[in-house]
Amino acid sequence: MPMLQVALDVLNIKDALKIAKKCLDAHIFEAGTPLIKSEGLKAVTELKKHFPEKTIVADMKTMDVGYLETEIAARAKADVVSILAVAYDQTIKKAVKAGKKFGIKISCDLINVKNPIKRGKEVQRFGIDYLSLHLGIDQQKKSKYPYPTLRKLCKAVRIPVSAAGGITAKDVPNVINAGADIIIVGSFITKSKDPARATRLVLERM
Amino acid sequence: MPMLQVALDVLNIKDALKIAKKCLDAHIFEAGTPLIKSEGLKAVTELKKHFPEKTIVADMKTMDVGYLETEIAARAKADVVSILAVAYDQTIKKAVKAGKKFGIKISCDLINVKNPIKRGKEVQRFGIDYLSLHLGIDQQKKSKYPYPTLRKLCKAVRIPVSAAGGITAKDVPNVINAGADIIIVGSFITKSKDPARATRLVLERM
Repeated sequence: MPMLQVALDVLNIKDALKIAKKCLDAHIFEAGTPLIKSEGLKAVTELKKHFPEKTIVADMKTMDVGYLETEIAARAKADVVSILAVAYDQTIKKAVKAGKKFGIKISCDLINVKNPIKRGKEVQRFGIDYLSLHLGIDQQKKSKYPYPTLRKLCKAVRIPVSAAGGITAKDVPNVINAGADIIIVGSFITKSKDPARATRLVLERM
Repeated sequence: MPMLQVALDVLNIKDALKIAKKCLDAHIFEAGTPLIKSEGLKAVTELKKHFPEKTIVADMKTMDVGYLETEIAARAKADVVSILAVAYDQTIKKAVKAGKKFGIKISCDLINVKNPIKRGKEVQRFGIDYLSLHLGIDQQKKSKYPYPTLRKLCKAVRIPVSAAGGITAKDVPNVINAGADIIIVGSFITKSKDPARATRLVLERM
């Protein structure tokens, strides 16, 4: 069965913890990029402290200094750290090296990659652990989530694939049919008046 | 005369302030990406508090949510915020919009862009304030700083251009000859045993 990752795209730790407490049936909690930039990696440490049984993702979106950024995410107690597929090959390889050294998994984010299947296969060879086919927030008005590409990507690679980008409960069957292993949901849960109910709505469709 | 920007690529605010105090002849202080991710935007606020007369750059390397990331950098008292040229056009346009609203300048980082002249001209049209021809740390062993491209870029655009990527005092004449307006120096100063002397060495060549 696929897993649900809740992207805590808020700006302070207090709000992140408050929402996370309402989504305890989700499998994975993600400290969003603006949260990490606002509050620092302490956001990750606090999430792990409060929810030690959950997998915690640090959405670092690393673009350079792959080794160091992976190391500091690991020291902050993240289980998974994200890196950009548009980064240098070398940055991704160094993140993988640090991942092995510090015991943290690397998820490579295909946001704004022109040919995600080709690049996905390339970065898989570098030894990353997960691929994320991600339609960024700023592009969600211009484009629809690319389910056909998701399906092709899931068939083309051996590692688990996550899907992210404006996904709501009603999109879940499409994501699952395309073969994704992890469904990342952000604002549908975090901006809901009732995050617990929104989480249940997503899980019921899974 | 070109300006000197010191990239404070350290992991905590205390070290950043300590180094900055030794580089008071530099014009611009940059809170590096790993510093912001480690400590949060408080790093920027502290730099501005201690050095109100300096221009403070938040090296956010924004990849998505351009409006929000620009807004939070401005609220943290940054004068300039960086965005990735590999981001969606829409992300850069939204950062420009927030920049105008909140009174913060946008520097577009050309790291790992295949055709920096073409992309530089494109993002200039979106209304950004600065362009940065940046050779990332992870690529510095594989490539030399691209001075011919820097020269072409400086001629091709109207906005100020900065150069970053392993630059030392002896590289300064090359950077200036190519036409750059801002020289960004990181480890040559920050990892020096004597950052004050390293700063002087750079400034003497300018």
